[in-house]
Amino acid sequence: MYTSKPATNVGRILLHRALQFRRERSSATSSNVRVVNDVRHIRGEYGRVTDAEVHHFQSLLGEPNVLTGAQNVGPYNVDYMKHTLGNSGLVLRPKTAKDVSDILKYCNDRRIAVCPQAGNTGISSGSVALFDEVVLSTERMNSIINFDPVSGVLVCEAGCVLESLMKHVEGHGYMMPLDLGSKGSCQIGGNVSTNAGGIRVIRYGTLQGCVLGLEAVTADGTILNCLNTMRKDNTGYHLKHLFIGSEGTLGIITKVAIMCPNLPKHVNVAFIGLDSYDKVLELFSIARAEFGETLSSFELIDNTAMTSVENKLHLSCPITNVHPFYILIELASSQPTVGKHMENILEKVLNDSIISDATTTDQISTIQKIWKVRETIIEALLKIGYVYSFDISLPLNRFYEIVELTREKLKGIEDVKTVCGFGHIGDGNLHLNVVTSRYDEELTRIIEPFVYEWTSKHRGSVSAEHGIGLSKTKYLEHTKSRSAVDLMRSLKNTMDPKCILNPYKVIPAVAVGEQ
Amino acid sequence: MYTSKPATNVGRILLHRALQFRRERSSATSSNVRVVNDVRHIRGEYGRVTDAEVHHFQSLLGEPNVLTGAQNVGPYNVDYMKHTLGNSGLVLRPKTAKDVSDILKYCNDRRIAVCPQAGNTGISSGSVALFDEVVLSTERMNSIINFDPVSGVLVCEAGCVLESLMKHVEGHGYMMPLDLGSKGSCQIGGNVSTNAGGIRVIRYGTLQGCVLGLEAVTADGTILNCLNTMRKDNTGYHLKHLFIGSEGTLGIITKVAIMCPNLPKHVNVAFIGLDSYDKVLELFSIARAEFGETLSSFELIDNTAMTSVENKLHLSCPITNVHPFYILIELASSQPTVGKHMENILEKVLNDSIISDATTTDQISTIQKIWKVRETIIEALLKIGYVYSFDISLPLNRFYEIVELTREKLKGIEDVKTVCGFGHIGDGNLHLNVVTSRYDEELTRIIEPFVYEWTSKHRGSVSAEHGIGLSKTKYLEHTKSRSAVDLMRSLKNTMDPKCILNPYKVIPAVAVGEQ
Repeated sequence: MYTSKPATNVGRILLHRALQFRRERSSATSSNVRVVNDVRHIRGEYGRVTDAEVHHFQSLLGEPNVLTGAQNVGPYNVDYMKHTLGNSGLVLRPKTAKDVSDILKYCNDRRIAVCPQAGNTGISSGSVALFDEVVLSTERMNSIINFDPVSGVLVCEAGCVLESLMKHVEGHGYMMPLDLGSKGSCQIGGNVSTNAGGIRVIRYGTLQGCVLGLEAVTADGTILNCLNTMRKDNTGYHLKHLFIGSEGTLGIITKVAIMCPNLPKHVNVAFIGLDSYDKVLELFSIARAEFGETLSSFELIDNTAMTSVENKLHLSCPITNVHPFYILIELASSQPTVGKHMENILEKVLNDSIISDATTTDQISTIQKIWKVRETIIEALLKIGYVYSFDISLPLNRFYEIVELTREKLKGIEDVKTVCGFGHIGDGNLHLNVVTSRYDEELTRIIEPFVYEWTSKHRGSVSAEHGIGLSKTKYLEHTKSRSAVDLMRSLKNTMDPKCILNPYKVIPAVAVGEQ
Repeated sequence: MYTSKPATNVGRILLHRALQFRRERSSATSSNVRVVNDVRHIRGEYGRVTDAEVHHFQSLLGEPNVLTGAQNVGPYNVDYMKHTLGNSGLVLRPKTAKDVSDILKYCNDRRIAVCPQAGNTGISSGSVALFDEVVLSTERMNSIINFDPVSGVLVCEAGCVLESLMKHVEGHGYMMPLDLGSKGSCQIGGNVSTNAGGIRVIRYGTLQGCVLGLEAVTADGTILNCLNTMRKDNTGYHLKHLFIGSEGTLGIITKVAIMCPNLPKHVNVAFIGLDSYDKVLELFSIARAEFGETLSSFELIDNTAMTSVENKLHLSCPITNVHPFYILIELASSQPTVGKHMENILEKVLNDSIISDATTTDQISTIQKIWKVRETIIEALLKIGYVYSFDISLPLNRFYEIVELTREKLKGIEDVKTVCGFGHIGDGNLHLNVVTSRYDEELTRIIEPFVYEWTSKHRGSVSAEHGIGLSKTKYLEHTKSRSAVDLMRSLKNTMDPKCILNPYKVIPAVAVGEQ
């Protein structure tokens, strides 16, 4: 029933622009200085990889698991969005936590920087090297260790691909608590490291609540066993949370234990047209109160986004008339009455003029078609031009205002083709997009501070789902207080004093200065 | 509908024994050494409170908020279970985070130990002083700051009593995501500090998933603003988790933002008799698969526990015949069909001989009566004698085995009156209880290692809900690996280098040695 697919076209289109941008920049920087997203990074005083290192790792992992040479290393040096091109010359593919431990101990002793990489599907450039960090890929750590069909607890290695885990637990009547567009290639260790969200957070919560335990290897090679499989365990500090969402800067996750909900037996999806954002909010309040625990998605698409999908991908809007806003509601339940309940409520809100039009279905093929409209928006926008994409959280009463303000701000700039908004209203998570004919640095300097300062002013989050990675470090303090960032830095220094783990990312601790 | 009440009788009965035990011990220890639960504690080299401190705090907080003298301080020196009697001579009652900050800064500069205390309803002696720590009570920080009826997010001060928050959000059609027996006096800051569980974790998860943000004051007086109210925020390390469940040893929580689920419209409760634990497990699998998201409780009571409630509290078992095991199932939903669904499934499992008897109801008064049987078990056991109470998590296939093994182990010991088990099967959380006519140290030395070693062997948790506090420090490593405890200690040293926050608790960092 879940139809999302990796947006494979995204990368190719952007790669061209990123490479062009890199070339424009390269003449101005030496090999120890790189400018990415307006931030000047200086290579830390890390050890260099020589033949001795390569031979050491070959003896440790076997030759096929030590990749060198541009052709082999190349795919690991480009991020999913093709925004950042790494300069790593060495990729290591460990099989076990012991391998990871040996690698990190060796690198820590020699202060060699390490960039952990799972599925490499993040969009904040968090999982590619910036300079010559050693890439540590978790792709070979891909065994399912156990699934307990009574408790619904899955224990597996970090490199398991999300979709393969979905299939495994579905066979037992369970589902993974997260679902992402990139499920065909993202890995559960990367999902946990980035606290990945997705389209059903409103129902199943974030990974902070679903991950029961994990095993991680810290910078000095210590294998930290926190692989609890109990729902309740209040013994000491909840260390797993140091690794959930810290993007590999405090340790490398090697195993996870995750709690899976039961597969719902009955699913119903509605697609609804509304005349104003105020009415969207009214509908959301009613939907939460009426549908309660059965509400598994509440997604917004504005008319600009919808028109892009219709024009560029030739997909039909599920309802015929044009409306300023569309909402996709998904209900999933053990109770057979959800379809009838959806119909009753929609009829009521239609009579009360809260909504203008709606269609509802429990047919899998139609459900898939409706979801496709929601999930291909970025693909459609990329056919128009270069996409400045923002992934922000906002209080619901200010949720759409920033889209209108951005339109206003950019009015008259000829190169701006489209400004649109869509996203997970149920989670307060907006995807604001500005499409232009080409990447323009000057425009970046106008849009980014404008959007992030407004988000900060309204106590939102500058990164709802996708983390800070490399690309948002300069905006971290727009969401987090100075004392919070100081404590983050203190934790980093305690757990990784030589700063070998994913340097330059999240909270740049060394060797970074803004111009 | 929720009927639980603090078991007020528990304390009085145990106080007598605890005092007696303290007297037996006191002759063997100096004022700088105290023996609690078989662990010898030595007072840390902390500053002493003098008149100068008292005057300082009086000028800071106002005289009524600085309590001295045995009569005023007394109630703050006894824990809920009356197992530990503190020796604090000073209680401070700050009103704001700024007050807390000023207090901690002053104490940190002088290395004066501080024991944070919220509702003081924990059962691991985590919130009373051991020696002469200053008690910092959060009781005056009790304002509700905001409730957003669209998002369901509550922001309030740490000292708000859980029940008052329940009433507040219920007025908006929401509920608190946790419910505890002590709701009438426990405070939300204490709940979050101990990651409190309760009877509906199976449905709403732990506080790790429900708490969106918090404000805490760290040992040096820094006010850490992590009061995020967004469901999704992936900007840097998730610092809130350092304070959720760390029992006030890393900072004092002053405000919380918490996500509230919608109040269910339809509730149905069943009480069921079964012939074996294997059938309990069969029923649980069916209940999870059939009831899915509507399942809000799945509680076990063994016949010994039931008989105690019948005999000592004269409450009737909701079903007439005697069975080795009883299960309480609660369904709560937005859908009106849950009652019919419950009936259909019970009929099926009755026909399949999985269960032997059952009654089901959607009448509030009957639901309350059924819950009362479950919630008064400890009260009944205390009428029999002294209760050794274990709060452990176990894999479901070994869940009840430890009850039988404990019975076997203690067979023939005349003083043992009752061994019984009950608890939250849905969370793998067992309350194993051994009742004797009086406290016996020798018996403690037999039971505790036996239960905790078995729990450890089966990868369970020695404290499912109630934390480590003072009373379980010696068993921490039965659940947590050495490397995990080392990292906890390292975090403690980083965040509270003078170890002024709740010393002797959770991970004794200084001044503790076992004999």
